[in-house]
Amino acid sequence: MPVISKKGLEMPASPIRKLVPYAEQATKKGKKIYYLNIGQPDIKTPEIALEAVKQNDIKILSYSKSEGSETYRKKITSYYLKNNIKVSSEDIIVTTGGSEALLFTFGTVMDVNDEIIIPEPFYANYNGFSQASGIKVVPVISKIEDDFKLPPIEEFEKLITNKTKAILICNPGNPTGYLYSKEEIQKLAAIVKKHDLFLIADEVYREFTYDGIQHYSIMEEEGLEEYGIMIDSVSKRYSMCGARIGCLVSKNKSVIETALKFAQARLSPPTYAQIASEAALDTPQSYFDDVIEEYVERRNTLIKHLENIEGVKVAKPKGAFYCIAELPIKNSDHFAQWLLEDFDVDNETIMVAPAGGFYSTPGVGLNQIRIAYVLNKESLIKAAHILKEALKVYKD
Amino acid sequence: MPVISKKGLEMPASPIRKLVPYAEQATKKGKKIYYLNIGQPDIKTPEIALEAVKQNDIKILSYSKSEGSETYRKKITSYYLKNNIKVSSEDIIVTTGGSEALLFTFGTVMDVNDEIIIPEPFYANYNGFSQASGIKVVPVISKIEDDFKLPPIEEFEKLITNKTKAILICNPGNPTGYLYSKEEIQKLAAIVKKHDLFLIADEVYREFTYDGIQHYSIMEEEGLEEYGIMIDSVSKRYSMCGARIGCLVSKNKSVIETALKFAQARLSPPTYAQIASEAALDTPQSYFDDVIEEYVERRNTLIKHLENIEGVKVAKPKGAFYCIAELPIKNSDHFAQWLLEDFDVDNETIMVAPAGGFYSTPGVGLNQIRIAYVLNKESLIKAAHILKEALKVYKD
Ligand SMILES: Cc1ncc(COP(=O)(O)O)c(C=O)c1O
Ligand SMILES: Cc1ncc(COP(=O)(O)O)c(C=O)c1O
Repeated sequence: MPVISKKGLEMPASPIRKLVPYAEQATKKGKKIYYLNIGQPDIKTPEIALEAVKQNDIKILSYSKSEGSETYRKKITSYYLKNNIKVSSEDIIVTTGGSEALLFTFGTVMDVNDEIIIPEPFYANYNGFSQASGIKVVPVISKIEDDFKLPPIEEFEKLITNKTKAILICNPGNPTGYLYSKEEIQKLAAIVKKHDLFLIADEVYREFTYDGIQHYSIMEEEGLEEYGIMIDSVSKRYSMCGARIGCLVSKNKSVIETALKFAQARLSPPTYAQIASEAALDTPQSYFDDVIEEYVERRNTLIKHLENIEGVKVAKPKGAFYCIAELPIKNSDHFAQWLLEDFDVDNETIMVAPAGGFYSTPGVGLNQIRIAYVLNKESLIKAAHILKEALKVYKD
Repeated sequence: MPVISKKGLEMPASPIRKLVPYAEQATKKGKKIYYLNIGQPDIKTPEIALEAVKQNDIKILSYSKSEGSETYRKKITSYYLKNNIKVSSEDIIVTTGGSEALLFTFGTVMDVNDEIIIPEPFYANYNGFSQASGIKVVPVISKIEDDFKLPPIEEFEKLITNKTKAILICNPGNPTGYLYSKEEIQKLAAIVKKHDLFLIADEVYREFTYDGIQHYSIMEEEGLEEYGIMIDSVSKRYSMCGARIGCLVSKNKSVIETALKFAQARLSPPTYAQIASEAALDTPQSYFDDVIEEYVERRNTLIKHLENIEGVKVAKPKGAFYCIAELPIKNSDHFAQWLLEDFDVDNETIMVAPAGGFYSTPGVGLNQIRIAYVLNKESLIKAAHILKEALKVYKD
């Protein structure tokens, strides 16, 4: 018999999706589930984007350019400019989701066995993309006690070896909700310059910042032109996760030139989705104002109710729409599965993401879960209630 | 300064797309170009697929399941059944184009430095995906003199080492147009069983067979269940290259399970495109009859006119819509660029793909070009005329 690759066998299962079969079973049994496990917002996609697709007059659904359609790449530069990011269309490669932008970036800056430093907990699929690319994630620990702020520079410098090629941050952070300050970005800039590393910033949650704090992009930082690679996506911004459009942005010409070769091999990003994404750029500001207002209330509601649960610790998110909650349990993998299989309150339960998968240090985060506050306030209140009741009876 | 990865630097530029800048220059100067370089058909996408997208009633453009939408995966099994391929929806993972299916397959069955045997010339992006995956392509040469038929078994066996994990064929073949016979598939089945290898078959051109010859899929071959992995795509079948939908099909449960982990890391294939692809399954047979009739005429026209050119050798394709032509020149890279930059007949020229990129043996195929007969007959006649005139004056 032929055998599966070691790479494939060791590929991590997605902590967000691996419980899906249990959820399907529960649903079959008639249980109602509140889905807090996945960053799939319940927010409506802007009408203007959906309409553009409906009104398309395509006769031959052709490949677009590998780097993405010219009109979309040009138009998105105005969006960036509004966000204080000065780039030209030539600095942009349109990708199939931010996911593909990450994959192209890893291929562009790292060889097999190279190392990338990532503050953990981090977006779980960074593990998957690293495994797929044969590179090694070197975590630098950020702590719930510190609200997940940037670890001290010394912690990074301790980890840098001659295999280290990049530092990757997620800003605002999934799963932490942490928003890096300008000073923190400048500290990172100093490290990467000193050690000749790339600074990759996953900024797909740029719009989702709360409490009046402004997002500061790595692309705004002067002197970082040759070092910075920004990952972006329309998935969360316009609640159009199913479009599968993202991009990779860099002022470093060699980065763009190299990433383009990966892009050419897979031919092009999806055409309909580019139409939707281009039209979405005209989404009125009021849409975002409403969405952000909604998320602030959701966050406030969720955090208040979580803080009211005995033994639960939570860091207040300043951005994105996730939070990490530490629970008085030992193994959140087991707990999350138990919630689906063996627990309910009036035949309702919750699905959460065990946080272990958001760490690469083995054994860390096992008493934590990630909650995506992508449901309405009422549902979040019910969900917090279910969690509270569950913790009363759960035995590790 | 941070540096680009070795992998990235050595990533091959697409032979299909690398001449694009020269074509753009030529267009700017007002030259008309006949595009024979890329497999982008001029055939209309079935109305039924386009309409389904226009009529969609999506309010929230959400992620689909990582393995693809349930309804699409179920429905596509009937299409396969009509093609004598008996699979269930659980044997299928929907991907972002056949391209992504290739990438997932490579990750699933091969580790860094593993080897894959591919009859060459082959689809150029197999090189790109191999480079991206850190694996080594071991070519087995098929010759224009033999119409590119399967090389003798001994040629394969000579190349098998303990690093060899798979044999990859493209059937019908891009760029050769070769269609493997049932006997040839059975020979390959015998080799992979004897040596415990996977047999990967890229069958994205399944519908495009001529002269009444039937396509024989590896999925029809009994006893190959644990060995076979089929790559498929809607791109050419329905002239919807821009959708970006393909799939990976295998009866080997471990293959599907492993590929699913790669699929989960990138979340999901594009939603609109899945709607179009599902609807396209109802395309009436008459659509295909017309398309095939058209391609047969195009092929006949092109081949006849190529054979009339002094010094040109060409293998008559039995499938797909490409052919390799050997020219009385030394370097088709240079020739193809020269055609765009320095040559015209009444201000018209042609864009072809230099065939070197379809080989992995260095130095082979340099006097060959690939022609995609994706244009109407009139254009093909003109294109052949331009080629004839060009060869009269071209100096290596
Ligand atoms: C931090 C982060 N980066 C990237 C992605 C990838 O998103 P997409 O591929 O949909 O753009 C996600 C999705 O959840 C994310 O949370
Ligand atoms: C042989 C072969 N395989 C795979 C592909 C990839 O096509 P897609 O990713 O559009 O499905 C192509 C495209 O030209 C091809 O010719």
